[in-house]
Amino acid sequence: MLKLYIGNKNYSSWSMRPWVLMRQAGINFEEVVLRFDSFEPESSFKQQALALSPTGKVPLLVDEGLVIWDSLAICEYLAERFPDKHLWPQTVAQRARARSLVAEMHSSFTALRRHCPMNIEAQLHEVGARLWADHADLRADVQRLEALWTPQLTAAAGPMLFGQFSIADAFFAPVCMRLNSYGLPASNAVRAYVQRICLLPATQEWIKGALAEQDFLPFEEPYRQHR
Amino acid sequence: MLKLYIGNKNYSSWSMRPWVLMRQAGINFEEVVLRFDSFEPESSFKQQALALSPTGKVPLLVDEGLVIWDSLAICEYLAERFPDKHLWPQTVAQRARARSLVAEMHSSFTALRRHCPMNIEAQLHEVGARLWADHADLRADVQRLEALWTPQLTAAAGPMLFGQFSIADAFFAPVCMRLNSYGLPASNAVRAYVQRICLLPATQEWIKGALAEQDFLPFEEPYRQHR
Repeated sequence: MLKLYIGNKNYSSWSMRPWVLMRQAGINFEEVVLRFDSFEPESSFKQQALALSPTGKVPLLVDEGLVIWDSLAICEYLAERFPDKHLWPQTVAQRARARSLVAEMHSSFTALRRHCPMNIEAQLHEVGARLWADHADLRADVQRLEALWTPQLTAAAGPMLFGQFSIADAFFAPVCMRLNSYGLPASNAVRAYVQRICLLPATQEWIKGALAEQDFLPFEEPYRQHR
Repeated sequence: MLKLYIGNKNYSSWSMRPWVLMRQAGINFEEVVLRFDSFEPESSFKQQALALSPTGKVPLLVDEGLVIWDSLAICEYLAERFPDKHLWPQTVAQRARARSLVAEMHSSFTALRRHCPMNIEAQLHEVGARLWADHADLRADVQRLEALWTPQLTAAAGPMLFGQFSIADAFFAPVCMRLNSYGLPASNAVRAYVQRICLLPATQEWIKGALAEQDFLPFEEPYRQHR
């Protein structure tokens, strides 16, 4: 069976992508959580992750000895392995567009990542308002998200970015968590999409898991002193 | 015909990936250079790029009105459109591994990018030695490259990362330029691979184009005062 190694559900945005994809698409897998005790070489997390892959990072997908160590590579692998799940949109043009969105998410949005690390259980609206006022690069990233999503939400036949749920939605699910936790300003269309992502059964299950962890990791918490 | 919009060949590492891929694979395309006069909104570069795509960035591939705006999405599109070119390795396992390498390159190596921007014509060995001594994150990035490449160079049947030339080699070509310009330390196996990449006809042609530009852009030059 496919094994997906992930980090803390509350914090690990990269892990959330393939997990939500597989769960929402109905792909059966075994989940293994490697808790982020720390990222130092001697940490339990690093020791366990390095035993699986030289990156020492999550997510990792293991399929019968084959180790795939990057969230985008994992999604492409799953799209090939489960063609009947239609994880990418079905037309060449829509697929090219979806991959442009996803690859841009993979390489960019560094200000949003840096200023607003994923923290699903935290309510950080006051922090978000301050960050929003202080950081033009954060505002530019959210503006870019709006520009990416809006034509999709207008053009799409269904409720997701490309009509039906696809890898594109899974890739942006952690961003939806950030927009919510930090209460970042967004258009009505974007807020409605964020809400739809939050209400997907797979996202609901991930959030439930995140809330159940009740784990406070200081190196993942630039803004809180305690839970 | 396919149209590929790129930036200055001397500086634009992201443009180099799909250009080298297409040229080396024998995919016919028209090249359009949008010179980096500046990245300010009113610059000629931004105006031209924004007229093509809301990202305002290069590379951009345009195929009969379809605009693909990210280097990885462009490569995936080409792999689908030209299956006989075998742009990805042919086995599922090798393809998954190649995508892991490529996607990691797409999202990571931020210290190498930041400290050592691509500058093909520059000889920056003294700068490189200083950066190497001062920045642990740069050393860690190059160490990670070594760890990624070495098993491939040992295992591969041919001279490239996955035997024959593939998207993986095109994605790392700009990194090879950086290792050379800054004279960063590397193992013999890695240096031999860098040399092989430099000697590919497509890379040679790109380098020749870069040297012919004779353009000095201060915002791309943290280390030189002039050419």
